[in-house]
Amino acid sequence: MAMNGVNSISGKGAGRRPAGDNTKAKIIAAAQKGFAENGYDRTSMRQIGSAAGVDAALIVHYFGTKQKLFVETMMPLFDGPKQLPHTLEGDIHTIGLRLATLYVGIITNPMSQQLMQGMFRSVSSEEQAAEMLRAFVHEAIIMRIIQYLPGPNNELRATILGAQLIGVFVARYIVKVEPIASVDSAELIEYLAPQLQTHFAK
Amino acid sequence: MAMNGVNSISGKGAGRRPAGDNTKAKIIAAAQKGFAENGYDRTSMRQIGSAAGVDAALIVHYFGTKQKLFVETMMPLFDGPKQLPHTLEGDIHTIGLRLATLYVGIITNPMSQQLMQGMFRSVSSEEQAAEMLRAFVHEAIIMRIIQYLPGPNNELRATILGAQLIGVFVARYIVKVEPIASVDSAELIEYLAPQLQTHFAK
Repeated sequence: MAMNGVNSISGKGAGRRPAGDNTKAKIIAAAQKGFAENGYDRTSMRQIGSAAGVDAALIVHYFGTKQKLFVETMMPLFDGPKQLPHTLEGDIHTIGLRLATLYVGIITNPMSQQLMQGMFRSVSSEEQAAEMLRAFVHEAIIMRIIQYLPGPNNELRATILGAQLIGVFVARYIVKVEPIASVDSAELIEYLAPQLQTHFAK
Repeated sequence: MAMNGVNSISGKGAGRRPAGDNTKAKIIAAAQKGFAENGYDRTSMRQIGSAAGVDAALIVHYFGTKQKLFVETMMPLFDGPKQLPHTLEGDIHTIGLRLATLYVGIITNPMSQQLMQGMFRSVSSEEQAAEMLRAFVHEAIIMRIIQYLPGPNNELRATILGAQLIGVFVARYIVKVEPIASVDSAELIEYLAPQLQTHFAK
């Protein structure tokens, strides 16, 4: 159900590329750059259209609202090659390592890192951006994780896990507290994995 | 050593109140209000002095820099009645519950919640505020926790624990993702405690 919800936003099948996909990709690239550099609220559809070389009306045609466009720009970070669903499938006893590897890969990627930093700048002061990130975190992350957390109150437990992931990003890139700020990916994964695992282990 | 570092900032003994403590308390109350409402960078020593009914020069005399004053306004949240050290002492097998109880108590207290929200607003966009919070988190939290985390790389593991605490605050009060945003204190403590405990358990 969660995945249906998300897929209905992105709305792409696995078949051959429909006409317009190139234009969509250009718009998403321009949106990623705009949101990353200027934050959500200070990036307009018109600016994105101008950077992508298309009319803003075409963005509305393809994506509907700016909110939906933003979800599309964030989704590839977690979901590009079906990353998060793929990560969650498989041996439940090593899910912590797979999730840590995926997440550290996302936050150490320069583009996604910049996009998330831009988001946090917006989110802490702008209610519209917070509402946006809230919807994204809920649909793309929490709703996907809960089915792997059997037992009572799994939605709350999924958000506590989500909070831990958010906290790693904020501690490393926003507050920049050492040593988590400058430790290399391998070491961060090594120490984060067993902590994430505890959410899933019986 | 960490506690010495922190105590040397606050510099208060357990003896009787020296003259000037009333004025200091007034300044700290005014600073808390200012930082909470306007963030770190947009609150000047002069504004705080004016709200406290004292000259800004007196604040400098008592506290030195605005940075040190800020640490004094944050410290009571974690350290007022020696809360964090007290919480960490005692049975290591129930430390997760004590730490969850302390932390949820702090973030659900309206004044400290507002102060932390003000901090996050500043921190995500202003480097001076980030440097400040970094120093506070390191001295007041990380350095105190590491001695309770035996084994290799305990400073990194302490920051991963610190990141988890930060994440709970950000998820609940900044991003406001459900259900962690509106769950009551007792339930949040119940589900957070075992997660925090895993950092300490052998």
